[in-house]
Amino acid sequence: MFRTIEWIDGVNKVRLVDQTKLPLTVEHIETDSHERIAKSIKIMEIRGAPAIGAAAGMGMALAALESKAKSKEELVKKLEEAALTLNTRPTAVNLTWATRRMLNLAVATEGSVTGIIDRLIEEAKEIAEEDVRMCRAIGENTLPFIKSGYTIQTICNAGSLATVHLGTVGAVVRVAHEKYGNIKVYAAETRPRQQGARLTTFEFMEDGIDTTLITDGMIGTVFRDGRIDCCVVGSDRILGTGHVTNKIGTYTMAIVAKHHGIPFYVVAPMSTVDMNTRPEDVVIEERDPDEIRLINGTPVTVPDAKVYNPAFDITPPELITAIITDKGAVENPTEEKMRRLYES
Amino acid sequence: MFRTIEWIDGVNKVRLVDQTKLPLTVEHIETDSHERIAKSIKIMEIRGAPAIGAAAGMGMALAALESKAKSKEELVKKLEEAALTLNTRPTAVNLTWATRRMLNLAVATEGSVTGIIDRLIEEAKEIAEEDVRMCRAIGENTLPFIKSGYTIQTICNAGSLATVHLGTVGAVVRVAHEKYGNIKVYAAETRPRQQGARLTTFEFMEDGIDTTLITDGMIGTVFRDGRIDCCVVGSDRILGTGHVTNKIGTYTMAIVAKHHGIPFYVVAPMSTVDMNTRPEDVVIEERDPDEIRLINGTPVTVPDAKVYNPAFDITPPELITAIITDKGAVENPTEEKMRRLYES
Repeated sequence: MFRTIEWIDGVNKVRLVDQTKLPLTVEHIETDSHERIAKSIKIMEIRGAPAIGAAAGMGMALAALESKAKSKEELVKKLEEAALTLNTRPTAVNLTWATRRMLNLAVATEGSVTGIIDRLIEEAKEIAEEDVRMCRAIGENTLPFIKSGYTIQTICNAGSLATVHLGTVGAVVRVAHEKYGNIKVYAAETRPRQQGARLTTFEFMEDGIDTTLITDGMIGTVFRDGRIDCCVVGSDRILGTGHVTNKIGTYTMAIVAKHHGIPFYVVAPMSTVDMNTRPEDVVIEERDPDEIRLINGTPVTVPDAKVYNPAFDITPPELITAIITDKGAVENPTEEKMRRLYES
Repeated sequence: MFRTIEWIDGVNKVRLVDQTKLPLTVEHIETDSHERIAKSIKIMEIRGAPAIGAAAGMGMALAALESKAKSKEELVKKLEEAALTLNTRPTAVNLTWATRRMLNLAVATEGSVTGIIDRLIEEAKEIAEEDVRMCRAIGENTLPFIKSGYTIQTICNAGSLATVHLGTVGAVVRVAHEKYGNIKVYAAETRPRQQGARLTTFEFMEDGIDTTLITDGMIGTVFRDGRIDCCVVGSDRILGTGHVTNKIGTYTMAIVAKHHGIPFYVVAPMSTVDMNTRPEDVVIEERDPDEIRLINGTPVTVPDAKVYNPAFDITPPELITAIITDKGAVENPTEEKMRRLYES
């Protein structure tokens, strides 16, 4: 199965999928230069918070190898420079977090420079593995809700490509498919940015999972016709009230699922759970109208058409069958149950 | 307001909007040649059953003018040839119907050749006017359901461009806007063919009606936020049971409207009412997967992605507030009420 980014032992290089080329061509970038990694993060050849955290960690390990440092002092100085180089996206907290973790480790480790570098390489691989384990835990925790032969409806992309491997919704599909061998997916294309068409369909096809692409308006028909056993969607922010912020179209899908008695599962890491914000205080980002007016740069409507383009919507808990994280599952979510999960 | 096709008195020419250029440029074709009209129908510069019926009628009138016939016999012969030329789309019953109506009139009319030609021009204009009156009747019959200041959610295009003028949903919006001056529209873009973006948004903007374009997945959010007062959609076939076949996405919209207590109106001419077919016998056309895989010829997913692409869906009567035709309105439609309307 598909890995977004990995460390190649022996040659000590980093290999990552160039996401700017997807889905039409699958090209990998292989590099031993931390500056090349910094460029990949900057121009979004790699994207998604967990994935760029892992990239930054591996970039630091490459910088250590490149440094040819004779002393620990020299090595730490080179790593401090590399951390600045790798922090190309100012709002990405994972970048700062990963580079700091690597730097702190270098400072804290005793022994020879070679020994410290080996330890840094192990740490970079560990950052990536932690993400894989978190995804796998989400997949395992969701498994009790998925039966053999299920067809799963998805929206947007909460797949491998935003993480190191597996993804969140991606983990649910892959872990269930590992077990049963017969899981199918319907991917809603997810206008306006079509992550369902560009990424989800691509990812699952790569993994040999039977995937059918539909437009967002077709959910009523596929639900009514009995093609779907459950919906599994990701989340950008899960509130303590059980309200779920996710890609625009999720709330519409949840209503239509409820109407047909189809279970609706939300999966995400515990790091997305926000116990403090109330649903009425969530600010929904409105994005560039040209995301709707143009597709691949070509107009699909009048150039100055008035457009409403909210990026996310909020699904209330009464439409959600269960919220499932790497820590566990909450069925029929309520504020009290969410707090219990959070504090457990 | 916008006319798809019209006869220009005095110069005796036909003027029509070149729909292949929309929405980026508004170009008109002006011609005194019935062969040019035949070409327009063939290459879909004009489209939609009522509109091409009117085009064929006007094409026959042009052919009569072009004939320079000295006798009625000669005129009828030229018209028979013109009818063959104008019937460029074999399944379009409106073409055959309009050319036959013109031909029959020529045969039945007594008097001078000039007199017959004048009569044919009047008949061609009458065919167009009948369509305008039918659309206006739909608009008038829906007016009791629309209040001042309403914002109307639409899907697909049931507007002017498929008819001579006004459209069906188009008539509802335009007749209400004539009366109140403050009607607004939210147009769902309607993937995969985006008639909402390409045609509906364009049409209403041309008429100075405040129109906002959204993607199909945004309906949940705009309904919940109180932006919409009612939905008005067209129909390709209304069954005697009150089930409504319309563009894919209509059923999803009806469920989401019901969930939010938003009235859902279906408007169409009586000619779309089919009292004989049962819902379970409606065959839904599946269209080319490339309609979803490509947009404007550019891939938006993996080239061989598996796709499900039903063109229409069926909305059951329990989700419909009223069905409104040129003959009248049926609230909370049932089989018995539909029969009463049909037989009235």
